[in-house]
This record gives sequence, C-alpha cells and structure tokens, in this order.
Amino acid sequence: MTPDPLLPELALAADLFDTLRAASLDEPGVTRASYGAGERAAHALMEGAARQAGLETERDAIGTLRLTLPGNDRDLPAVVIGSHLDSVPHGGNFDGTAGVVMGLAAAVHRARLGLRGARDLMVLGIRAEEMCWFPEHYLGSRAAFGLLPTDAPDALRRADTGRSLAEHMAEEGFDPDAIREGRATLDPARIRCFLEPHIEQGPALLAEGLPVAVVTGIRGSLRYPRAAVHGEHAHAGAVPRAHRRDAALAAVALVAALDARWAAWEASGRDLVVTAGILSTDPAHHAPTKVPGIIRFSLDIRSEDTALLAEIDAWLRGEAERLEAARGVRFDFGPGTHAAPAAMDPALRAALRESAARAGVPYREMASGAGHDCATFAGRGIPSAMLFLRNAKGSHNPEEAMAMEDFGAGLRVLCGALDGLLA
Amino acid sequence: MTPDPLLPELALAADLFDTLRAASLDEPGVTRASYGAGERAAHALMEGAARQAGLETERDAIGTLRLTLPGNDRDLPAVVIGSHLDSVPHGGNFDGTAGVVMGLAAAVHRARLGLRGARDLMVLGIRAEEMCWFPEHYLGSRAAFGLLPTDAPDALRRADTGRSLAEHMAEEGFDPDAIREGRATLDPARIRCFLEPHIEQGPALLAEGLPVAVVTGIRGSLRYPRAAVHGEHAHAGAVPRAHRRDAALAAVALVAALDARWAAWEASGRDLVVTAGILSTDPAHHAPTKVPGIIRFSLDIRSEDTALLAEIDAWLRGEAERLEAARGVRFDFGPGTHAAPAAMDPALRAALRESAARAGVPYREMASGAGHDCATFAGRGIPSAMLFLRNAKGSHNPEEAMAMEDFGAGLRVLCGALDGLLA
Repeated sequence: MTPDPLLPELALAADLFDTLRAASLDEPGVTRASYGAGERAAHALMEGAARQAGLETERDAIGTLRLTLPGNDRDLPAVVIGSHLDSVPHGGNFDGTAGVVMGLAAAVHRARLGLRGARDLMVLGIRAEEMCWFPEHYLGSRAAFGLLPTDAPDALRRADTGRSLAEHMAEEGFDPDAIREGRATLDPARIRCFLEPHIEQGPALLAEGLPVAVVTGIRGSLRYPRAAVHGEHAHAGAVPRAHRRDAALAAVALVAALDARWAAWEASGRDLVVTAGILSTDPAHHAPTKVPGIIRFSLDIRSEDTALLAEIDAWLRGEAERLEAARGVRFDFGPGTHAAPAAMDPALRAALRESAARAGVPYREMASGAGHDCATFAGRGIPSAMLFLRNAKGSHNPEEAMAMEDFGAGLRVLCGALDGLLA
Repeated sequence: MTPDPLLPELALAADLFDTLRAASLDEPGVTRASYGAGERAAHALMEGAARQAGLETERDAIGTLRLTLPGNDRDLPAVVIGSHLDSVPHGGNFDGTAGVVMGLAAAVHRARLGLRGARDLMVLGIRAEEMCWFPEHYLGSRAAFGLLPTDAPDALRRADTGRSLAEHMAEEGFDPDAIREGRATLDPARIRCFLEPHIEQGPALLAEGLPVAVVTGIRGSLRYPRAAVHGEHAHAGAVPRAHRRDAALAAVALVAALDARWAAWEASGRDLVVTAGILSTDPAHHAPTKVPGIIRFSLDIRSEDTALLAEIDAWLRGEAERLEAARGVRFDFGPGTHAAPAAMDPALRAALRESAARAGVPYREMASGAGHDCATFAGRGIPSAMLFLRNAKGSHNPEEAMAMEDFGAGLRVLCGALDGLLA
C-alpha cells in the first residue's frame, strides 16, 4: 500500500492547529480578536510556516497575509485559497483557520513535490471576519476590495476595547488610510478563482456520515431583528375571545403559518431556513393572568433563492395585514435587512465534485447558511467555491470538533482540483 | 312622570363612592390593602351609613362587616348580599365596593320604605379578596367559613409589609385564632342565598350597550403558569430544518393549535377563554441569529365546563407528545392548578332575569371569567348568583369606570328580586 503522499502536510497542519490553539488559548476555547493579539499570532504562525516551505510572503496595507507559490507565468490571474484567522471570544480552533491551513498545506505540498502550475497559487489570511469585534460584515475582505465605507476606520469601534478600527490597525502596523481612501489591495482581474475551505457550522455532514460537502451557494437573508405586535393588555378571564387584541396569539399565528409554509416549500425542494430567535412578551408587564398587549420577535429567513426571499417578504406583509384585521392588533416589523445570495461557480463546483469522486471521498452538495468571505469574492464577479468539512458541535464555541481525517479528505479534494485550476 | 323611588339611595351610593375614593386616595387610583388602612376606612364608612339608616351592624372575629335589616322571623336563614372592600394598589374605586354599596343601598331603601321581609337581609363587607396582598384565594370569605389552612395567619405575609396576616389582623382589632382554630364565623345553614353584584371586568356589556348581566357561572380554570419547551440552541443559518430542535417553534405550534381549537370550541357554543400571558425565549441567551433552545410560557384556560377543561388538559398532553416526537423537543408543563367552575343557582338567576324584565332593564347572561367570593359561597352549597354592572377600562386599575346610571339599573334589578327572595 502506497503511503499517503499528503502525510507530511497533514503532520504540518496538525502541528499548526496545535500551535495556533496554544498561541491564542483563552479558556474555555481560543480568542483571536480582529486586529488584536490572537489574530496577530495566527498570521505570524502562517507566515513562518510558508517561509519555511519557500513560499513568497507578503502583507498588504490592511494586513491581509498573502502566501504565494509562483507559477510559470506570473502575469496570469492567480488561483486563490483563503479564509480568516480571527475568532469569536472563547471560540473554537477551526472556524476560519481550517481554510487557511488547508490552503497553506496544499501550497506546501505542491512546493515539496515541485508541482509548478501555469499560474500562481496564492493563500490568503483574511482579516477581521467575525462581526463580534467590529460591527461590519466581512470587514477584512471588503476592505481588501475597497468596498468599506471610507469612514469605517474612524466610525467602527471594537466591542471589547471601545477603540477605533484605525487605532487597532495602526497598532498592528497597518494603514487605515487605505480604507479611508477606498484603495483596494486585491484586484478581481488578477484572481482566476477563489476557494474557501471551511468547517460546516451545522450537523448535516456528521448526521449523514460524510467528510466533506461542495457548497452550492451562500444563502441570502431577509431579517427583521426587532419586530413587534401591539395589541391590548386585558384580564385573562373576563375578556371574551371576540373582544381580545392578544398580541402574543397574533405573533404565534404568523410564526406558525410561516413554519407551515417553510415545511411545504422545503418539501417542494426549495432551499430555506427560518428562525424566530426572539419571541418574547414584555417581562416588565406580562403575567399568566393577563392577555399580552405586546410581544417582540425576530425573523431570520435564509435561502439561496432570491425570488423565494422576496416571495416570503410579500407573504409576511399580507399575512400580517390579514391578522391585523382579524385580531385587532398592529404588526411593526421594524428595520429589515436583505442580503443577496451568493451563487458558487458551477465549473468550480464541478471541479471539486470530480476531484472528490477521483479521490474516493464521499461528499454531498449543500447550501451555506452562514455568511463567509467567499461571498465578497463572488460579489466581485470572481468564480468562487467553498468546501465544507465535517464538524461536530457547531462553530463559535470551544467545542468545535473537526477530525484531522476529515481535514485530510478535504485536502485531497482540494489538491486534486488544483491540478486542473492551475494549469 | 313618577320620580324614581330609588333616588335617595342612588344619592347615598354616589356620596359613598366619593367618600370612599377620598378616604383611600393613592394617586393614581385608590389603595385599600387587605387588613390595612384603606380597607379599614371603607368598612368604617359602610358601617356608619348603615347605622345612620337604622340597620344592625356587627363585625365578626375576622373583621367581616355585617349590616342587617331584620326580618319578621329572625330564625329563618337570611338573604345575604356582599362583596369585598379591599382593592389592589392604585386600583379603581368600584371593584368589590360596588357590590357592598349596592347591597347597603338596597337595605337602606327597604328600611326607608318600611319594607320588612319574612327573613333578615344581611349585607357583608368581606375582607381580603385581592390576592396581591396575601397570596391566598378568597382569603376573607374562606376564613369566614373556616376553610383556610390553620397555619395561614402565621404563614401568609403581606406583600408590601412582609408582616404576617396574624399581625395585621391583630393590629386591626381582629382575632387570628379564629383562623388558627378553624372557627367559622358564617354558617351555610343560616344563609338562604348569596348575591354578589360586581363590575364586569371585561368589555362585553359596553360593546353590546347593556347596563347589566346575570352571571351564569364562575369559570373554573386549568393553569400552567411556568411551562417550558426545551430544545437545542443552534446556528440560524447553518442547521437545516430536519436537524433543528427549535423550542420556540414547538411552543408556537402548541399555542397555535390550542388557539384554533379554542375558535372551534367557541363556535360550537362551549364557554372558553385561553391566554398565553407569558411566551418568552431566554433574554440571557436568545438572539435573532440563534435557533432558540428554550422558551418559557404560561397557559391560563378557563371555562364553566369542567368536562371541557379536562378534555383540554388531555389534549395538551397528547399534542405535546406528538410535537416532542416530531420536533425533538421536550415539553415541561411545570406545576398545574385546577379550579372547579362554580355554577350559579338557576332559581336565583331566574329571579334576577325576571326582575330585570319587569324593570325594563336590558341584560344578557354571561360567564364570569374572574374569580369572586361568590365562588366560596357556591362551594358551600349556598344558592348563589352574581349581577355584573357595565364598566369601561377593565378592573384593577385607576381607570375603572362604572356609570351611576348603570349602578341604578343594577339596584333596580336587585331590589326587584329581593321582594320575592325575602318573602
């Protein structure tokens, strides 16, 4: 039996994960704040390992780490693999880092075997993806493409320190003026395609016994984080049904109807998840013997299907109107946000599927419910794709559990696809 | 046109309400704590007015006020009219007091006209009905029948002072030993019937343009004040429907199904009100982007129909079991309470209806959703009935609004019924 040609890189990866954990340990879990100490340590570690393997290394003005294995024709747009290196406070060791480590392992593997492609293979360590530090979606990747508001360095403050993004960037040796001036550090025309390996943040692969998934798209979302129904408080015993303006039962009717439609849409094959994460009568006023006069709730609705999100939004408005008339209440959906889905590139998805099939790695296709930097690349028109790795216990917590066997399966799929993509 | 023969008593009642309000004013509204200053002032006021009209007055060992117009045969069981004289903090002027004032007005009217019946007419000022002071249902009327736990004087503490019922009773000049020894101060065999006029605590009479209602029964209740559904927190985007254990959607499904059944039961003519007064994801953990792992809720279900309450209890258990299996959650209904409905006496109801018809007072029949001292009397086997008076703005708040015209209509109905009942 031939030894696995990826063994040295799997050993490197395991060592990098261990060192990463130790360098950012903050029990329970790890903490790698955006433009903070833990993220800095992670970038330094990746950079060191890349140098050791003979890759070119560079940091751009905003701190994005670029690790490059040169191709034969340096003028050709590069194949880029990347993810982020920050984490939530007391987070897990693999969210984000798995993608960077896998890209690095793939580049090191090709370097070790002297597999030089036609074009550059570049691995990116992206900054500041976790929104818990600075309240901005995909801060690091959007900054790299010059997409952030120019006041972001001064307007955004880090949740733990209260200090500005500009201060934290400068402290780490980077240049907030790049963002203030809208200067891009990445050029879409110089990127042939973008690949982001990432741990799955749900349980589907674990439940189905599959090590990896090829992502079909990153779901868009329709969100009402601060909705409410206003009715009228009343005596629980003395007021008959016809005279009630029960806010809670109206909200329940809306959410139950949405839940039923979700089941039907899913049964008909449409991609959808629906969450009412907050559903709460008013703790200052509610009581078991009082008809609730107000209930607050949130809706988070995600789908790969833009038309479905629009359809649901219209349905919600109509259903609320119907309930208002029937139940004497008033719906206030509050501020809503709409994020467009990001479709993954069909050719890249095919390349990953074919590579998995050749390597004998069982896989499925699935949508990504969470957002990822990959959405920024796809939004710039760059052919993009994601590879999910089986992971127990979800993400953003110390219990994240990706097995190195599954990382190895992902790395085999990635390396197999690179042969063709770099040609 | 003949002047209204009740005019002097309506003037007396209006004066009593004004004086009551002034004596217990605690803006906004009035405060008459059980065994406290406001209740004391109300009892003194009623007692003084009764003496002035030549009625016999007496306070029993626990402080119940008895105002009696003697009948020709003092050995016959008395016709008793009564309600309570305490209020919630910052409550309205009419909840409870309307019944005592109306009973007093009827007795004064008969005394003034020399209408002596065969039996005594006794008006009761009952103590401590509002549970917000001492956490015990119908404290004053149950104590009068020797029905309280014997440790109640020492175990029950008043919410505002933290001092025991015994201390407060002694301070007002009454004897906690009567309760400690289970001594009844009222004998069901000495009561021919009990009548409790009371403001309606809902909006039905107002909505239908009717001054009074004859109560058909006091609803029993099935209550789960501290129920919960336990599921599992999860990522709002990354976990597909089949893998979720969404506590909130399971609770929503139960409550929505109960709401639908309520509508159906009501349409088929069955008496029922359903309230989920509390419905709340966990403020310490909920978020718009998190599938809720727990939701707490309360159910308060009331009906005159014992069989329906039992049917609903069984239905709830079955539905919860079905949802547990379908949704991977666990229902915990927590401690439940069951209170039996109190049927109002058919002959008394007929007497009130006929009196209303004779007096030309439009009325309807309706169930009482709230509990009243009348339930204690009915529970002792005493033929009992209630007369509801139109009232805007509900009860237990400073906005209670009973018009003296409606009080007058109720007094006419009551006086008309007394002629026959006292014979």
